[in-house]
Amino acid sequence: MTPEEVVNAFVKALNEEGVGASLRYIAEDCVYQNMPFPPVHGPAGVRDTLEGFFTVTGPVRIETLKQAAAGDYVFNERLDHFAPPSGKPFPLPVAGAFKVRGDQITEWRDYFCMRQFAEGTGLAI
Amino acid sequence: MTPEEVVNAFVKALNEEGVGASLRYIAEDCVYQNMPFPPVHGPAGVRDTLEGFFTVTGPVRIETLKQAAAGDYVFNERLDHFAPPSGKPFPLPVAGAFKVRGDQITEWRDYFCMRQFAEGTGLAI
Repeated sequence: MTPEEVVNAFVKALNEEGVGASLRYIAEDCVYQNMPFPPVHGPAGVRDTLEGFFTVTGPVRIETLKQAAAGDYVFNERLDHFAPPSGKPFPLPVAGAFKVRGDQITEWRDYFCMRQFAEGTGLAI
Repeated sequence: MTPEEVVNAFVKALNEEGVGASLRYIAEDCVYQNMPFPPVHGPAGVRDTLEGFFTVTGPVRIETLKQAAAGDYVFNERLDHFAPPSGKPFPLPVAGAFKVRGDQITEWRDYFCMRQFAEGTGLAI
């Protein structure tokens, strides 16, 4: 798979099968950072972070709007759609940057606004 | 110039010459959006938005960490360095998406966290 195909496969697994299935695309040494927060590491770090979010937001449905690859890097613009169990559905604008090695992601950074996330969920921050 | 070269030239002008000089790379019909806010339009919209930020932060020095182009689109990861007149210097993680036509930018979207921006400036939001 190309780096872009790996990112697409990861997103498809996350959308359609859930966090557990998506982790096969996450390398053991992956560094994952939601930029408003410190980085986490490996499949366990990705799982704990995503499951923490999804407790509040329900599962994500990622809509990729634009995407470009350069070497091992893949960049995208997305709407990450959430439907909180206790609130209204909302789309969060996100820009993602990924580095891929083989069939797995070794770096994943997401850029978004925590204020927009908090307003969407109805949570105070 | 390639789309990537146009973005680089815009950033260089903004870093070294300031907002006014950078606007020659902004198309009349440009749509510019800091994703936590509504979009603005054209060189005047870009100028008013940037000058508004810079009143609080001082001029920006943009450091491009990674960049990729796909067709007319350019994506980057950056640290936008600010040195507020009344505070401490801080770097803001930003992901940018640009669309280029000829030698000008027609779309510019920046993804970042307003909470990080506000903490950096010392402003409450």
